[in-house]
Amino acid sequence: MIRIGILGYGNIGRGIEAAVAAAPDMELAAIFTRRDPASVAVKTPGAPVVNVADLEAWTDKVDVMMLCGGSATDLPEQTPAYAKLFNVIDSFDTHAKIPEHFANVDKAAKESGHLGMISGGWDPGMFSLNRLYANAILPNGSDYTFWGKGISQGHSDAVRRIEGVADAKQYTIPVESALEQVRSGSNPELTTRQKHTRECFVVLKDGADAAAVEKAIKEMPNYFDEYDTTVHFISQEELNEKHSAMPHGGFVLRTGSTGWDNENKHVIEYSLKLDSNPEFTGSVLVAYARAICKMAAEGQTGCVTVFDVAPKYLSPESNEYLRAHML
Amino acid sequence: MIRIGILGYGNIGRGIEAAVAAAPDMELAAIFTRRDPASVAVKTPGAPVVNVADLEAWTDKVDVMMLCGGSATDLPEQTPAYAKLFNVIDSFDTHAKIPEHFANVDKAAKESGHLGMISGGWDPGMFSLNRLYANAILPNGSDYTFWGKGISQGHSDAVRRIEGVADAKQYTIPVESALEQVRSGSNPELTTRQKHTRECFVVLKDGADAAAVEKAIKEMPNYFDEYDTTVHFISQEELNEKHSAMPHGGFVLRTGSTGWDNENKHVIEYSLKLDSNPEFTGSVLVAYARAICKMAAEGQTGCVTVFDVAPKYLSPESNEYLRAHML
Repeated sequence: MIRIGILGYGNIGRGIEAAVAAAPDMELAAIFTRRDPASVAVKTPGAPVVNVADLEAWTDKVDVMMLCGGSATDLPEQTPAYAKLFNVIDSFDTHAKIPEHFANVDKAAKESGHLGMISGGWDPGMFSLNRLYANAILPNGSDYTFWGKGISQGHSDAVRRIEGVADAKQYTIPVESALEQVRSGSNPELTTRQKHTRECFVVLKDGADAAAVEKAIKEMPNYFDEYDTTVHFISQEELNEKHSAMPHGGFVLRTGSTGWDNENKHVIEYSLKLDSNPEFTGSVLVAYARAICKMAAEGQTGCVTVFDVAPKYLSPESNEYLRAHML
Repeated sequence: MIRIGILGYGNIGRGIEAAVAAAPDMELAAIFTRRDPASVAVKTPGAPVVNVADLEAWTDKVDVMMLCGGSATDLPEQTPAYAKLFNVIDSFDTHAKIPEHFANVDKAAKESGHLGMISGGWDPGMFSLNRLYANAILPNGSDYTFWGKGISQGHSDAVRRIEGVADAKQYTIPVESALEQVRSGSNPELTTRQKHTRECFVVLKDGADAAAVEKAIKEMPNYFDEYDTTVHFISQEELNEKHSAMPHGGFVLRTGSTGWDNENKHVIEYSLKLDSNPEFTGSVLVAYARAICKMAAEGQTGCVTVFDVAPKYLSPESNEYLRAHML
């Protein structure tokens, strides 16, 4: 059994916990938290909850440590630090800082003889893989990524920071007609506004000015000003009742052509439709934990990404079984 | 530059030739044929055409030999034989015989220090990969594969063997309502008849009995008897004009659930829409030739499949570039 440690018990941590319970070849070693362990109620019967201060005592009881902190401040510190003690996986998603983060984790993991993987999940992660496969197959073509329909945590947070807003959820929605244009192979050039719309459900504080809030949302630089945004004002009860789930998903397409005169067109499409973004993300990370464990057992050290992991390592089945039943 | 040899100059061989021409890091070393080389006109300016009898003289002029024979009789002989001389790739697609073929190629390639890959293309190939990834992520779920709309070579051949048939093409067509049922996450159990229909365009020989031909098609065991089949009788001119292209494609879906009570549903879908089946297949094989070349340079020998190949090897870009731009 592969022994999984989970550091951080938020949405992703809970998603990983459920995925470990569903895996035939894994067990939860412990959940590590910065909080008082006595205050954390976990779902797995009998699973230890341990304060991060005591983490070093677990180095030979955990095969892969799943790091569930945030990309802004937690992971740039945590992943290199814990790669000195464990094989690790994170879901670092600050695209611009991936090269720097990779270098830091690679150095720490190589020095200590561990294997680390960064930027797992579905984007970065499964969407990245599909971009790479499709680009390698169709060098002459164009890439398109659409996200949603789903809750964007970052945009929801941005709305909640506006004065007069008590609570809010923001949905990113792909524009169906743009998707159809891409699928037709017409290779359109699409602006930000043409690809996605945004829809906000907002609870106002008592006495707040709805018109001012709506204006502040729609004109917010980077987050909303380049999009067509719809704002709905609703009660906290309605927000809780109808918008507490965490659906997400999206589409990765590559259209391209082959032939001596580029006369033949092709469309490669990968899509996800997810009821629970954190549970699906946790499920991807757990499959990669299996891979990291096997690759570390083969002697690999340093940092890898989804690009470096041969697909066979993700499955609990033998290579013989995979060839006979899935090829 | 990676030097590619092509053995067999049929549809797939020509698809590979076009893909090599489109690759920034490859060149065509030679095309090998069982025919008289003087009778074979190839598209690549200046490319040598060589009789297979002279193949051994090319062992240090070809980095990867692409084997384009048929799965029934050619490849079971050719792939192990040529793996003694070259790194090789084939698109062997007789699913039931993959374990045996793998063992034969593995033995020959290991003994001679070469690397071979079998069963490349899109099914087996990209569809297999998507089945594996999706199964690893969602262990609790169901797999669905739909093919088409596209020309099935095997079914077209079967129709052409019927008495009274001069020529024919057969299209495999996925049933849209079945696809929609699967996408809804309702996890349907679908019969063969519910998943695909078949459509035949048939040119009759002079004096042939159309009703008898239609009956023979629709009742043909294994090929047609389990499907709803439509038969159209047309002229040879119309067949040549409207049905000479080789489109194909299909859909690989996995639907599954996560959560402690399996309360969250997810749909993973991969699809291909291809104007030219052989050119797309050739493009996949050429990306894997790049991978095989790099993996052989790292010292790997024996037989592999798409499951064993880390995605990074497929791209002409550096690992640093891929992490910075595609992750």
